[in-house]
Formats: sequence, structure tokens, C-alpha cells
Amino acid sequence: MSEIVNVAVDAMGGDNAPDEVVKGALQAVRHNGQVKVTLVGRQDVIREAMDRVGGGEPYPSDRVEICHASEVIETAEPPVHAIQTKKDSSIVRGMMLVKEGKCDAFVTAGSSGATLVGGQVLVGRIKGIERPPLAPVMPTAKGPVLLIDCGANVDARASQLVQFAQMGSIYMENIVGVKKPRVAILNIGAEEEKGNALVKETFPLLKECDTINFIGSIEARDVPAGAADVVVCEAFAGNVVLKMYEGVAATLLGEIKSAMMSSLRSKIGAILVKPALKSMLKKFDIATYGGAPLLGLNGLVVKNHGNAKAIEIEHAIEQCVAFKEQKINEQFRTKMKLVDRTKARAAQ
Amino acid sequence: MSEIVNVAVDAMGGDNAPDEVVKGALQAVRHNGQVKVTLVGRQDVIREAMDRVGGGEPYPSDRVEICHASEVIETAEPPVHAIQTKKDSSIVRGMMLVKEGKCDAFVTAGSSGATLVGGQVLVGRIKGIERPPLAPVMPTAKGPVLLIDCGANVDARASQLVQFAQMGSIYMENIVGVKKPRVAILNIGAEEEKGNALVKETFPLLKECDTINFIGSIEARDVPAGAADVVVCEAFAGNVVLKMYEGVAATLLGEIKSAMMSSLRSKIGAILVKPALKSMLKKFDIATYGGAPLLGLNGLVVKNHGNAKAIEIEHAIEQCVAFKEQKINEQFRTKMKLVDRTKARAAQ
Repeated sequence: MSEIVNVAVDAMGGDNAPDEVVKGALQAVRHNGQVKVTLVGRQDVIREAMDRVGGGEPYPSDRVEICHASEVIETAEPPVHAIQTKKDSSIVRGMMLVKEGKCDAFVTAGSSGATLVGGQVLVGRIKGIERPPLAPVMPTAKGPVLLIDCGANVDARASQLVQFAQMGSIYMENIVGVKKPRVAILNIGAEEEKGNALVKETFPLLKECDTINFIGSIEARDVPAGAADVVVCEAFAGNVVLKMYEGVAATLLGEIKSAMMSSLRSKIGAILVKPALKSMLKKFDIATYGGAPLLGLNGLVVKNHGNAKAIEIEHAIEQCVAFKEQKINEQFRTKMKLVDRTKARAAQ
Repeated sequence: MSEIVNVAVDAMGGDNAPDEVVKGALQAVRHNGQVKVTLVGRQDVIREAMDRVGGGEPYPSDRVEICHASEVIETAEPPVHAIQTKKDSSIVRGMMLVKEGKCDAFVTAGSSGATLVGGQVLVGRIKGIERPPLAPVMPTAKGPVLLIDCGANVDARASQLVQFAQMGSIYMENIVGVKKPRVAILNIGAEEEKGNALVKETFPLLKECDTINFIGSIEARDVPAGAADVVVCEAFAGNVVLKMYEGVAATLLGEIKSAMMSSLRSKIGAILVKPALKSMLKKFDIATYGGAPLLGLNGLVVKNHGNAKAIEIEHAIEQCVAFKEQKINEQFRTKMKLVDRTKARAAQ
């Protein structure tokens, strides 16, 4: 029998907490016999949500636990301070469950800042990993692309980008199932001599790296077209890619919708094209891909969108199962030739 | 009578040169009595193109000149080397016409790299301007936005971004006609403490700057929605914004098109919604806004898209007329409290 994967879930995090989060967690438990969830947050609130969203349907109660946490970190709170002072918050408690080995992973739709800080400070990095990148999978015309890093480490160094490339490649191959993923570095032109100082320094290092399938530079324009499977970038630029994706799509689709509603003729046309458009848009639905993993930690933290619904929480939990089954962290340790810098320094 | 504006036009630059370029130039001359164009490039090629695209229609020949240039700088050529060695190229000749005061501006759809380098090296900067930014106007749901810098100066400094903000604001107010343009800095979160080192250093400087209407940070997601009129950013991030805009729109529209062609039902629907969609897409047509000006030079250089058509060349030429009429460079000099660093250093 396959091993049980115990996922701590932040029942208080996100715009739709606790109901959608609890619902997603229960769905995951119902649909996958390997999943155990530990709902973290205020016990009374979680119990009430379970009654509301459980729908009277049975669920295997031996695979659903509650870990009480009395506090909540709000989105607007300065993250470092929040992590330090709100010891009984759902984010801190959930991360400590991973840290202490009681859970395999932590899923949250709560404060991004606190999640990134907590991941580093509480869960901690794998020895030799310099910085943990946030790596969402995004839809493209040709299938999914992993964008690494999209917000965790601004002003990163070249050696860190090389690690991102390696982690992203392993993740994409084993979790998303893309064989020999094409790894590209985000750049402002296709030629090797183009780019800012960071890209120019990183490019030759990626070229030398024999554990990845490096295909060179990619312009942002070619990301949505699916020209690479893993796009390596510094967090500021990665965040711009991610947010532009959302922003342009939202604006365009909004404009198309109102254009279609602008006359009787176009309204009738809209009814006729709707089914075709719907199935096309499903392909671009970010919810399919679960959350964004924060990679390189002793365990796993998955960050869902603030407005995540039950289905996204469920997918994020499924992601944690695959992550454990594929032994991703062990692969990072063995394939990446990690150097423990603390030890290296001490030995000098 | 209004003053004549003499615009040098690179007849050899871009995917559709010389025909579309020459056509756009002749249209500009026909439609606007203030415009004089100097077509730069191989004389025989230009004359042939004029015969082909002139359509037998008359044009005021006193306002069309040819400046012969025997060479062409190709897109893939290393720009610095090309500018240095191809002295008789259309880009070098065109820029020299501006430098020598024979023309007011230079419009090209040719090599971006050579245009950026040539602008700095040949045309030269206004005294006190640290770096000339490339500043395209892009469509949003609420009207145009100026993105400054989108590719000229990677790894820029905070003081340079402040100049970009000031130049962008003056340009947007006087050329595009937006009163008290809302200036925002591109960031990865709305809060003041967010951002990379450059943004954190620039933010307070923009806040203090009393010649602009600074509204704080903008996330990339809100750019297409039209949340600011001028978006200040370092060139790498700006390039990502621009290219993601193009890439996401192209991918989405391509997918929508094929979805609409996927069944008889949707095909009929497509015919019905087409007029409404067409007029919506017109709003998002980048051609409306002409080219991207390279600001802060002793004169003006406007960079058109490589695949620019006649209408875009015409708009770019019109832009040069407005630029001269509104005395934008004089406004930069008087309103920006420019410090001539060479003189400042010499005085010490």
C-alpha cells in the first residue's frame, strides 16, 4: 500500500477561508486514499466550516485532523514581524508541523510575504540551497510552463539562478511529467550577448550545467506561446511575467465580453461561440495546476492564490502527494551537487 | 504659418522596407502640410519604391528629399560595431542629419540595438540627462499608458528612473494630452516597503519630486487595466511588460480564433460577433500610437516596430511634429532642474 502523505492546510488563509479551504481539503481526502490533512486554525471555526461544507457526506475521519491555532496573519501585515510575534497563527503552526516532521507539506492561500519568510525561517532550507524560489506552473498554448522564481528572492545572484534552473527542471520532469524539460533564461533578446548584468553572468553558467537541457534565452513574448518548459528568472522580472499574464488576460477577456454584449447581433453570436470559447479557456485555467511550490525547503510549502477555491486547494494537496512520492527533495540533494556553505566555510 | 518639421526616415529599416516606409512617409507629407521628409537609404531603391507605392498620386515634391546612404545595418549585427563601421548606413546618416540640425527627428523601424546606441553616441543626450529611455505608448482598457524605460538602459540607477518619470510625465501631458498624468513605479506589490533594491531607493525620490503626480507603486497586473498614465521601470522589467503584453494578447487571440473555427456553430457565431470584436480590438491596436520615442536626446529618435506598416510610419512622423511644436526638449531643459555633471565636476 502506498504511504500516507500528511498535508497541513491553512484553514484561515485566503479570501475564501475557511469554507473553500476546508471543502478542498475534504475533497482531497475523499478522492485520494493516500491523503491525510491537518486543518490548521481556530478549532471552532474549522468545525463549523466542516459542518457547512461537508454536505452531510461522509469522509474518512481518521485522515482529517485539526491543529488549533488561535491567531491569523493578515495579508497586509509586515511578514517578518508577523512570523516573529504571531506564534499561534495558522501559518506559523502549519509550518512548524512540517519543520517537526509531523506533516510532509503545508498548503496556504494566506499572506504571500509571511509564507515566503516562514518557509525560509521556520521550515528551513535544504543544506546547500542558497534561496528557495517560488515556482508557479502557468498555462501556455503548448502546455504548462514553470516560472522560477516569481517573487521570493529579489536581487538574486547568478549561482542562485542556476539552482533555480536545476530545481525547476527536476520538478517539471517528475511532477508535471515533461521529459527533458527545455530550460530557458528570461531575457530581453534572443542573442547571447543581450541582457542585464545578472543574465550575462548566469547565461554561461547555465550553458555549462550538464544536469539541465538549457536552450538559451527566451523573450517574454514567447513564454505564453510555450517556447520553453522552465523559465528561469530573478523574482522581480518573474513577478512581472506572472502578473502581466493575469492582467492582460483579464483585461482582454473583459473587453471581449463587453464587446460581445454590445449589440443584439453580437449577443446572439456570443451564445453560439460560448461552448467553443469555454473549452479553450479551460486550457488556460490556472486552477488546473494547483499552487506555486516554494522549492528547496526541508519539506514542502505550497502557496495558493489568495482567491483560491476548493478545487485549487485540492490540486495543491495532490501536488504534495506527488512531491513526496517522487522524492523531489532527495533528487535535489543527489542531483544538484549541493555544497553546504556553512560546512565549507568552517572547514577553511 | 506653422513651422516646417523635417523628419529623416530610415527607408531601409524594418521587415516591410522600403515600400511600407516610403508609403507612410508620402502619406504623412500629403496629409500634413507641416511635414517634410528626408528619405534615407539607397537612392535607386527609394526611387523605385516611390514609383511602386506612390500610386500615381501627386505629392508635394518640395517636401520630399532623398539622402543617399549605401549601407544597411541588419537586425542581428552587434550594434556598437555596426554604428562604428557602417558610416554610410541609413541609420548613421539619418542620425547625423539630426545631429547636424538638418533634420528635427529620425524615424526608423530598423535595428533596435543600433538605434539605441546611435541615439546616445551620434545624436547625443541633452546636457544633464543621464540616460535616454525608450518610451512606447501602449493601449489599456482606460486609454494609453507610457512605459518608460522599456529596453534602452538595463541596470539603471535610481536618479535615472527619476528623470524617466519626469520626461515621461511631460511627454504624456503634451504629446498624448493627458492632464496631470498619474506616474507610478512598477513594483511587485502595492506597499511602499515592497520591491527590489532599485525600487526601494527610487520610491522616496519619486515621492519627493514635485514636478510629477506620483501615485506610488503599480503591479504589472494593473498596467493593462489602465491604473497609471506613466509607468516608470528599469529597462529589463519594462521590456518584460511590453513583450508579455504582445505575447499574451497574441496567444489568447490566436486561441480564440481557432476555438471559433472549431465547429459550424461557433463559425456562425464568429461571423456575428466579428464587427463588435473588431472595433474592440481597434482600441488595443498599438499602431495608433506611432513609435516609441527615445527621449532626452538633442533632437528626437522614434523607433517603430520591426514589422511596422505605412500607417505606423505616418503616425511616428506625426509624433515628431507634435514633439517639435510642443517644444518637448525645451520643457525637459527648463522643468527638470537638470545638472550638467561634466560642468559640475569641472567646477569642483
